[in-house]
Amino acid sequence: MSITLYTLCGADRARPFSPHCWKIVMALAHKGLVFEERPLPFTGIPLVEDGASRTVPLLRDGDQLIADSFAIAVYLDEVYSDRPSLFKGEGGVALARFVEGYSQTVLHTAATKIAVKMIHDMLDPADQVYFRQSREARLGSTLEDLTAGRDEEIASFPAKLEPLRHMLRYQPFLGGETPLFADYIVLGLFQWLRITTGSTYLSADDPASLWLDRCLDLFEGRARQVA
Amino acid sequence: MSITLYTLCGADRARPFSPHCWKIVMALAHKGLVFEERPLPFTGIPLVEDGASRTVPLLRDGDQLIADSFAIAVYLDEVYSDRPSLFKGEGGVALARFVEGYSQTVLHTAATKIAVKMIHDMLDPADQVYFRQSREARLGSTLEDLTAGRDEEIASFPAKLEPLRHMLRYQPFLGGETPLFADYIVLGLFQWLRITTGSTYLSADDPASLWLDRCLDLFEGRARQVA
Repeated sequence: MSITLYTLCGADRARPFSPHCWKIVMALAHKGLVFEERPLPFTGIPLVEDGASRTVPLLRDGDQLIADSFAIAVYLDEVYSDRPSLFKGEGGVALARFVEGYSQTVLHTAATKIAVKMIHDMLDPADQVYFRQSREARLGSTLEDLTAGRDEEIASFPAKLEPLRHMLRYQPFLGGETPLFADYIVLGLFQWLRITTGSTYLSADDPASLWLDRCLDLFEGRARQVA
Repeated sequence: MSITLYTLCGADRARPFSPHCWKIVMALAHKGLVFEERPLPFTGIPLVEDGASRTVPLLRDGDQLIADSFAIAVYLDEVYSDRPSLFKGEGGVALARFVEGYSQTVLHTAATKIAVKMIHDMLDPADQVYFRQSREARLGSTLEDLTAGRDEEIASFPAKLEPLRHMLRYQPFLGGETPLFADYIVLGLFQWLRITTGSTYLSADDPASLWLDRCLDLFEGRARQVA
């Protein structure tokens, strides 16, 4: 069976940037599964798989089609249970939802204000129209007004990593001695920042930076290759 | 073998309030283990078990003596592995450290500013001297100056629960369908706030409040009984 992962890109197809898609690129690499990545512009998503999903990541695995990054990770761990686990137990699945909550409500919110205008500028013209309309409606502000608070968001961003730094006093990865899907959840956020803005907004000797370096090194530098 | 758990109290021995001790009270109840709780004032901790620990919780289990709440939970899960798990797998242990990081660096920091003066006022006179000296040195501020920012901390406290609320859209407990040690980590923080200040600073219909109610109901209302 062949596996296809639909992801998200701007005008440059070689630099897919969606945080949620990166979670699954890493999850597939963790499982050692061969897959074809098909980066799409926003407006291209409804044109594949008979418009089955409005969002990516979208995974085609033989006759199975699964949307939503967390659902895909759970699917992969169940179906390919003979390969390295993404969760290491029922508790690992449950608590990964909390890591997702932290990433979405704390980090993602900050990263949106930091990156949103630069994401817009990376897109194809047709995607720029869609992106501006949908994001301005969702966020209740113009992209330019959101960007006005960018310097303050950058200044306050490193402090938001304190829960991660506390954990890193005890172990090298969220998953313990080796990474789990929870690591890829937070890595996805940093891939988004790296690829769309060129920075992680952390100093090189920050324990959170050193964790990120370890993640970027995984699977022959799979995530580091895109910048 | 008898189990003794040393915890922390103020002048009223019937209202032990330490967040870290409450984690272990709940962990022992989760395991269905019978234990004797011995609440101590701060200055009484060096007087038990030959001064083995400067902090509580401290667990005496037969010939074993274990300090530090996380270490105690791991110990209990390993030694009493035939009873309900506190972690449900290796991933659950690893990610509980991240929940601890969130609780310590985000919630605990806020709760300290909200509760510190009221904790002081609950203590025996000898403990008040110790508490003021040690906390003012650690926090770099007088208890009164810390308390000056109390109203702002209370106003910004509910927003700090957003990661928990995101998780609660998918499951009733951090542990999934049933609670795990990660739930007791965050519950401990709320016990501390409830017992020392009389409030949780959340509205009753907040999903985080409803989660807390479920935790307070566990084990015949073990945590709710102290207020």
